[in-house]
Amino acid sequence: MAEIVNVGLIGYGTVGKGTAEVLLKNKNLIFENTGIDIRLKTVADLAIDTANPDELLSLCEVVTNNAEDILNDQDIDIVVELIGGYTFAKDFIISALNKKKHVVSANKALFAMYGTEIYQAAELNNVSVCFEGAVGGGIPVLRVIKEDLAGNNINEIFGIINGTANYILSKMEKEGKEFEEVLKVAQELGYAEADPTFDIEGIDSAHKIAILASMAFNTLIPFEKIYVEGITSIKQIDIEFAKKLDCKIKLLAIAKKHENDLEVRVHPTMVPDVELMAQVDGVFNAVEIIGDMSDKTMHYGRGAGGKPTGSAVAGDVISIARDIAAGCTKRTPILGFKKDYTYYYPIKDIKDIKSAFYLRFSVVDEPGTLAMIAGVLAKYNISISEAIQTDERAPGEAVNMVFMTHKALARKIYDAIEEIDKSDVMRDKTVAIRVKELV
Amino acid sequence: MAEIVNVGLIGYGTVGKGTAEVLLKNKNLIFENTGIDIRLKTVADLAIDTANPDELLSLCEVVTNNAEDILNDQDIDIVVELIGGYTFAKDFIISALNKKKHVVSANKALFAMYGTEIYQAAELNNVSVCFEGAVGGGIPVLRVIKEDLAGNNINEIFGIINGTANYILSKMEKEGKEFEEVLKVAQELGYAEADPTFDIEGIDSAHKIAILASMAFNTLIPFEKIYVEGITSIKQIDIEFAKKLDCKIKLLAIAKKHENDLEVRVHPTMVPDVELMAQVDGVFNAVEIIGDMSDKTMHYGRGAGGKPTGSAVAGDVISIARDIAAGCTKRTPILGFKKDYTYYYPIKDIKDIKSAFYLRFSVVDEPGTLAMIAGVLAKYNISISEAIQTDERAPGEAVNMVFMTHKALARKIYDAIEEIDKSDVMRDKTVAIRVKELV
Repeated sequence: MAEIVNVGLIGYGTVGKGTAEVLLKNKNLIFENTGIDIRLKTVADLAIDTANPDELLSLCEVVTNNAEDILNDQDIDIVVELIGGYTFAKDFIISALNKKKHVVSANKALFAMYGTEIYQAAELNNVSVCFEGAVGGGIPVLRVIKEDLAGNNINEIFGIINGTANYILSKMEKEGKEFEEVLKVAQELGYAEADPTFDIEGIDSAHKIAILASMAFNTLIPFEKIYVEGITSIKQIDIEFAKKLDCKIKLLAIAKKHENDLEVRVHPTMVPDVELMAQVDGVFNAVEIIGDMSDKTMHYGRGAGGKPTGSAVAGDVISIARDIAAGCTKRTPILGFKKDYTYYYPIKDIKDIKSAFYLRFSVVDEPGTLAMIAGVLAKYNISISEAIQTDERAPGEAVNMVFMTHKALARKIYDAIEEIDKSDVMRDKTVAIRVKELV
Repeated sequence: MAEIVNVGLIGYGTVGKGTAEVLLKNKNLIFENTGIDIRLKTVADLAIDTANPDELLSLCEVVTNNAEDILNDQDIDIVVELIGGYTFAKDFIISALNKKKHVVSANKALFAMYGTEIYQAAELNNVSVCFEGAVGGGIPVLRVIKEDLAGNNINEIFGIINGTANYILSKMEKEGKEFEEVLKVAQELGYAEADPTFDIEGIDSAHKIAILASMAFNTLIPFEKIYVEGITSIKQIDIEFAKKLDCKIKLLAIAKKHENDLEVRVHPTMVPDVELMAQVDGVFNAVEIIGDMSDKTMHYGRGAGGKPTGSAVAGDVISIARDIAAGCTKRTPILGFKKDYTYYYPIKDIKDIKSAFYLRFSVVDEPGTLAMIAGVLAKYNISISEAIQTDERAPGEAVNMVFMTHKALARKIYDAIEEIDKSDVMRDKTVAIRVKELV
């Protein structure tokens, strides 16, 4: 007789429905793949009308508004948390772990902020916690780091890991519109939330790179040490200059390992068109991993959405069900390495990180302007690799001067800009965008 | 005390050395990731000078010219086969399985041709067989299908899975040179073998798509039923036309699932530039998987090379070592599904597969030529979506007429070409290249 594994799911929103769809509609296929009867027994959500369950829910044994119906059900082996948020989700997960239930989640904010507490509770109770759906939606990437690349020292991991921000930047590039206008359309189409702060300010990407970097570098990343800069100040003019420079502007999350510390940062970035990453458009996400043996690999797909994220959540459920059926526990550590999950590597201050920069100076075009800017950059030892000036202008009008710098310490760039921006010839604040070096 | 897992490796060529490098140089990291002491105990190769082992080999306990030293060593838990070829490799693997040793290999030809026999021996002996390194070098893709996407009905899987062919096509495109010239340079640089038949004739890609399609579609693919067409007849003129059509010519391996049968084929393909796949250049490989829930995901990286492939081989070794340490067997079926590995789906005849086609007719430019060609195409119900003619020519000289067709059955295309090629106005055989539909 086939092994039965019972699953309880809490949070029946977009991803909850997608997960239920995978587990219920593809139940026969999953049985063919595993030989295990994986049953979505219980779905809990405050908003479910339990008297009138939808078609999917009517396939479940228990449909409830009460989270306790999952926690108190001794038959449930795996609990899937898809409610999001911090407090209730964390308490619920820890209660489930303390009842020796395995946990699957897609809650990136929670794991980025309060991972340690959860990992320790799981270790203590000898059960698994998986959250592939937390990063990159339907793209397999966390298991790739923990399993496939486990023989590699990973030196860098970076990517486009927020679909909303990438959708907006792609649209700005393709339609020539400004940020505010594109955001409005994205909200109307449901690609951006009513409150888009987490997506457009880079916070969601920071949550995800915290998780990726933790797994890649065998450490925990203190979330508050991550440098985060969103895309709200990106102007169409910068996207046009990017085209001239054979680049795309992307919101990248970047983590690099150095001998004594790490870089972890999220910011708009000029990505050269020759990089495959520059071609990742719209709501798609991609993560690139550079291992000392594997060299670079890229993992691309839908970074959000019910069914793609549900595919990742179901993948975790299937993996844990296989562990249960094969009688193994603690096969793979939660973050892919065996430590007590309390060790923090030092994180570099953003000012101490070197990058090439795109600098756009908005100036009055009068004799001496170029000399002033060049002089200040020289004073801070910033050398220029390329310069562009827009050609059409009326006399006395503001004009944009663009410089691409060689690699320079961010603190020198900041200091130079501060000095330049004090000058009377400046018509607007200087725009500085980091340039991704080729990998 | 940490669990010890002993590994024996046979075949100390490029991938053998790469694998040894991963297991030996990153031994501490692998221990940190697994808590397991994975020891590369024995390396066997006929060509090793056992009296003077190199630096890596001197870290192994046993260095030998005798394969039996691995098979007869009761301490060895995992055997890594990297000798390639059919007969000896197969016998060696089956002997190892019969001695209850787990097997890791990167031998795509062997698994594509004689997989069943090996899978059955492994099942019988209750041990694992893994071969992530057989497809896509360092790119994690087989485990992705078996684990991450296990909740998906996979409808299509395709990709660029031969680095040599992709290197040649990329060079032809970028340098404007003909096939023969680029092949010669590739051979000099070591990107193509002295006998490049398997790579340039598509056979190696066919081996790999047989493995990918087996795992993706839960069946076995009879290798001889795969349609295989190489890149030797690709001309610079076709690459130039591809540019005009916003396409790249790539050697694609494509497998699709239909209700009652499968398509499995390898051939040069016009890939529209808007597809990320078109941007995969040089020796890099990429596999795209379309699941009913995950939608499309793409997996990109180095398709060959000692260290990247060694990373994949080591990933398999680590996975099996984790199974051993966790005390689980048969956690994941060899091909990712539970069947007896003897079931074969029907495979469509290439003539019964519909594609859009690029057709290049080399003709004498005289009145009536276009009418003749258009007439024959119409007779076979082939409709045209786009037509291009080169503009520079001397009177009476051969001229190229290019047509892009809508989707049509290959047998109609073949019949039409056969009829057209009989005409006196034809100066060369007609070139037909399939066009990848957007996914």
